[in-house]
Amino acid sequence: MAKAAASKPAGPVEKKLVGVADTVIVAADRSRDPTLEIPVRSLANVHFNAKRGIIELGKRKQARTFFNVGMAKKFMQTVLVADSLAELQRANLTTSLREIYYRTKHTMKGSHENTFDGQNESDPLIEDLEVALAALREELHVRAENSGSVVGPLVLVDDGDQVNCARLGKGGYSVPSIVEPEYIEIRRCTADFVLLVEKGTQWNRLSEDKFWRTHNCVLLTGNGQPPRGVRRLARRLHDEKKLPVYVLVDNDPWGYYIYSVIKQGSINLAFESQRMAIPKAKFIGLSSADPETYGLPRNVGIKLNEKDIARAKELMNYQWFQKPAWQAEIKRMLTSGLKYELDALDR
Amino acid sequence: MAKAAASKPAGPVEKKLVGVADTVIVAADRSRDPTLEIPVRSLANVHFNAKRGIIELGKRKQARTFFNVGMAKKFMQTVLVADSLAELQRANLTTSLREIYYRTKHTMKGSHENTFDGQNESDPLIEDLEVALAALREELHVRAENSGSVVGPLVLVDDGDQVNCARLGKGGYSVPSIVEPEYIEIRRCTADFVLLVEKGTQWNRLSEDKFWRTHNCVLLTGNGQPPRGVRRLARRLHDEKKLPVYVLVDNDPWGYYIYSVIKQGSINLAFESQRMAIPKAKFIGLSSADPETYGLPRNVGIKLNEKDIARAKELMNYQWFQKPAWQAEIKRMLTSGLKYELDALDR
Repeated sequence: MAKAAASKPAGPVEKKLVGVADTVIVAADRSRDPTLEIPVRSLANVHFNAKRGIIELGKRKQARTFFNVGMAKKFMQTVLVADSLAELQRANLTTSLREIYYRTKHTMKGSHENTFDGQNESDPLIEDLEVALAALREELHVRAENSGSVVGPLVLVDDGDQVNCARLGKGGYSVPSIVEPEYIEIRRCTADFVLLVEKGTQWNRLSEDKFWRTHNCVLLTGNGQPPRGVRRLARRLHDEKKLPVYVLVDNDPWGYYIYSVIKQGSINLAFESQRMAIPKAKFIGLSSADPETYGLPRNVGIKLNEKDIARAKELMNYQWFQKPAWQAEIKRMLTSGLKYELDALDR
Repeated sequence: MAKAAASKPAGPVEKKLVGVADTVIVAADRSRDPTLEIPVRSLANVHFNAKRGIIELGKRKQARTFFNVGMAKKFMQTVLVADSLAELQRANLTTSLREIYYRTKHTMKGSHENTFDGQNESDPLIEDLEVALAALREELHVRAENSGSVVGPLVLVDDGDQVNCARLGKGGYSVPSIVEPEYIEIRRCTADFVLLVEKGTQWNRLSEDKFWRTHNCVLLTGNGQPPRGVRRLARRLHDEKKLPVYVLVDNDPWGYYIYSVIKQGSINLAFESQRMAIPKAKFIGLSSADPETYGLPRNVGIKLNEKDIARAKELMNYQWFQKPAWQAEIKRMLTSGLKYELDALDR
């Protein structure tokens, strides 16, 4: 937060954030109880929109009011966080969740009480504001650390630099957590598809082999469950460059779930599905049918443990895993009692 | 492992690996018990070399012999892993720890017994071979996923691509886990120093502010405890470009320790210190004296918890924390009962 604020007209996100403070002022003027309407972010308020193919947040909201002993502190904290986020907008800087906590933490005048006692108090409020204001965390300028890498026939513009991901060796470009158009421009992409690889080390193998060159694709990884930046980059390539997205995951319940998050979004971030999910994303493996189809030796399978089995059964109950092909896929895994990792193919 | 092996003369590492198999043949020819000498990798076999300023592995070795019921399987496994690693050398490819496990796992003929039952059996053998053959994991072509980012006036050559880290926006180059000269060439570097930042989000802030441009430095992070690739890159810049290395960490026992690992190496990978450690690395913060020096409000400090306190006391006993300045630094933290994060400065 070192830079001086440039004086420029307030953008739409800044206006929304300032609106939170306005709520208080308007209510005070009219001698009413200041109230914020916060959508409920729980499992019960989530549903699968089969037509759109994404997980959506329902319409249930909760009023957070100031003149309520149980809510007053949280109300005050929400306004503090909104104020801090508005400042970021004015300065056109980004910051981390951790920094927001420090920026809003202070001891209240004439008391020993802190506005915030831990980051666990400020993090959920940022998510509350995301949902209430319909502004993604990225638009609120709050970031996480870089996580993920990309190589392929793709030219990005980042801070005025043309980053040609076909000329970055096997290491590639380090994907920032915020890849919104105001930060990262997709200048050019001549790939035929995006290959989103679950495991970092599998990505390394494909990057080293220049798979992206022989198959003309964008090779992307988030080192496990892909973080928001990687998901958004895949989604933007899908939208802006009309590229199909293929997801390469291990054959275990966790791989299935990673694929499903990329495809229809996650339960706990359901409000982001509309900007993050890629309903047309395709699963290309590893499938529980592959060991038989391709004659994998049985001993490279790994016995499912209790957690795997419980998770697989949970997946079978999700609305978005109801297609017969998915039910058969998961049943086959449970029947065989084995899971397979992509690494098993590397022999 | 898809590429065909190029027929080229065996390199020094391949020769060492083949030597492992030769041990068996030579012993068999002479009707002796095949034996491998493996250095002991435990705390008791580690000491701090004050003169060189690094943690070193001691000289204790253990014989691993074939004609010993308790060692036969492990001996056989070691030879299998060495054989698999030699294959990698011949093909000039890298692979992951996980893949090595799969490559060496098979059911033994005429039995139901597997050569390996879990990766926890093969990983330590790779470390054993590293030490026994004095060849780093990177030289053995075994890698982890990319982890870490770099920006600054630095040109690397990766797979023939000139990667100019001053032209990669704020995202930067994704640092591979293997940055040995045969993979990554440091073509040019006009920076005055290397700034190795503990936290990814702090690195993001400095990258976004173009700190590396105003202060002419290489800005590097490993997102927490830096992985081997990031440590090696810093060390190579220090050696080859004579750059001082400054380490920016939080003011807590974990930050101190991260600094100490960069400086003199770690206990459990002591055999790598000579190639990884940077004894001249400088600590630039955050110090427990800074809150007073710079008038930080007390409430941005975080109370030390039991683990912090125990860890701090442990550090005070390490030989390489015996300098009076370090003893005073840690005592000051313990007396105040507070730790400080870099994020606290961002106000």
